[in-house]
Amino acid sequence: MAGERPHEFALIKRFFAPLASDPGALGLTDDAATLAPSAGCELVLTKDLLAADIHFFSHDPAEAIAAKALRVNLSDLAAKGARPRGYLLGLALPAAWDAEWLERFCAGLAHDQDTYGITLLGGDTIASGGKLLLSVTAIGEVPAGRAVRRTGAAPGDSLYVTGTLGDAALGVRLRYEPDLARSLALSPDDQAHLLDRYLLPQPRTALAAAVLAHASAAMDLSDGLTGDAAHMAAASGVDLAVEVTAVPLSQAARQVLARSPEWLATCLGGGDDYELLLAVPEDRRDAFERDAAAAGVPVTRIGAARPPVGATGVLGYFRDGASFTLAGKGGFRHF
Amino acid sequence: MAGERPHEFALIKRFFAPLASDPGALGLTDDAATLAPSAGCELVLTKDLLAADIHFFSHDPAEAIAAKALRVNLSDLAAKGARPRGYLLGLALPAAWDAEWLERFCAGLAHDQDTYGITLLGGDTIASGGKLLLSVTAIGEVPAGRAVRRTGAAPGDSLYVTGTLGDAALGVRLRYEPDLARSLALSPDDQAHLLDRYLLPQPRTALAAAVLAHASAAMDLSDGLTGDAAHMAAASGVDLAVEVTAVPLSQAARQVLARSPEWLATCLGGGDDYELLLAVPEDRRDAFERDAAAAGVPVTRIGAARPPVGATGVLGYFRDGASFTLAGKGGFRHF
Repeated sequence: MAGERPHEFALIKRFFAPLASDPGALGLTDDAATLAPSAGCELVLTKDLLAADIHFFSHDPAEAIAAKALRVNLSDLAAKGARPRGYLLGLALPAAWDAEWLERFCAGLAHDQDTYGITLLGGDTIASGGKLLLSVTAIGEVPAGRAVRRTGAAPGDSLYVTGTLGDAALGVRLRYEPDLARSLALSPDDQAHLLDRYLLPQPRTALAAAVLAHASAAMDLSDGLTGDAAHMAAASGVDLAVEVTAVPLSQAARQVLARSPEWLATCLGGGDDYELLLAVPEDRRDAFERDAAAAGVPVTRIGAARPPVGATGVLGYFRDGASFTLAGKGGFRHF
Repeated sequence: MAGERPHEFALIKRFFAPLASDPGALGLTDDAATLAPSAGCELVLTKDLLAADIHFFSHDPAEAIAAKALRVNLSDLAAKGARPRGYLLGLALPAAWDAEWLERFCAGLAHDQDTYGITLLGGDTIASGGKLLLSVTAIGEVPAGRAVRRTGAAPGDSLYVTGTLGDAALGVRLRYEPDLARSLALSPDDQAHLLDRYLLPQPRTALAAAVLAHASAAMDLSDGLTGDAAHMAAASGVDLAVEVTAVPLSQAARQVLARSPEWLATCLGGGDDYELLLAVPEDRRDAFERDAAAAGVPVTRIGAARPPVGATGVLGYFRDGASFTLAGKGGFRHF
């Protein structure tokens, strides 16, 4: 990257101010932004950092890097049942950047702002002194006191996940080892699906209202089902029993597992799904499934919460009754 | 730095959870935090990034790095008249860190949390893949619609600054060129004063209530008086006339200028003051000065806003009437 390099104030005016349509952002011309929750609501705040060649590849499309930085945060808001409001962007640029890269990055932000109904509220742009690093603080809102936590799963609640799991974990392996696609006999479509799931998370914002209405506990899956579920189990003081064969897998992931069953560990334990894990009380299941279908978000029941036996954890089981510890139980062993 | 390296969850529990006493932080065990403004208030949000060897020196004390990251943000809140509430911390750690460094860093956060009445609400910790980088989103509150902006300075308003200017800009020069202390004949005390002003900004949170009550416009001085004042002039549509000899200088800075008057440009144009620049209408000056004195914050009248002549800008003048352009007027020329 080379070429034109506008000064910081020119850069804000040209690239970022057009993204800041909320009156409280003050056109990014002030020291700070103002924001009030809607009547009866409180704000929900989350912050994720993303570093080049750790959370994304430096040579990923600029639009996709921007989208990922927003979406991993929007996923956290959806898990709390929150409606997204806006975000602050911290952008630490590497020495090698230019206006064309930043234009594409901001086009990615603009696209997702439209998709998810958010606007830029403020932020900061600096030279990183190293590689690209992004910091997004996303802000949503829920009716006061109603944010869905990880702590509410009770024995008997059903355990649901959205979408399919493991695709992104397989996708990132394909990035590092492109030859895998051949050895796993993946079709071009299956390969593209897995790569895309890693590149562009799909935060489940459409499910937020149903999460708020029906879930007793919820979180987003960023570090893999087994490890994340162990955190919900610990926070709620339950065991979570997962029927392994019920975990929803894409056609591409099923193709991988048909040929090489040992990749199941990657599908259940790998990260970057950005799907939701939810506990739903028995008497809310029908309404939850109906609202999820109406929102267009596929949900699958994968198990249930149980009274803990010893330390909390995640138990895997098969229909024949065989069971084993997936995570937790004092060791936080990940599959 | 080397030694023990706790895993992320252990790290949150050990180092950061003790800093997160607000109930809305959920003990940092959830995906997000909740926060509601006090009745009748709205939130004020600001975000600053700080990168090692750009905004601080890598080998600065860990406590001071933590304090600086908070204080540059608290300075923005004070400039809006906002009472600080809390912050989210993004911490991108270099490969070489250890528990002792992080303990000292968190001790610095804890100290400033006590001093400024804030708590940690959430955040994220990652490996930076390079040097240390910090991202703080600070959150304050003001009565709804009352945040003091940069846009309100009107012709006739007096221009005030807090504290003394230029010390940090001189201090950072001493960091790069330690021999300057001898050539400028600085006493050890003067030298220590300048170095400390760069290392540890003193955000003017104590003045926030007086800013809110009396200022027509305000901003914090992070990039130097001349450049920052030009932004206020442009936002307010006025010229700002600054009586150069009225700009408050420390004993150490006066010592430097007595020997080498050419350093005046550094004092007026250098950054990192983290003092406030305020416009105060004539009929509020007495009350403002009285409230500032009661808050223990020194304020100095350095000039006044005037109807703009041509493009807005900052005019320097001397008591004999001689004047010159400090910044703005179409060129944003900095002294």
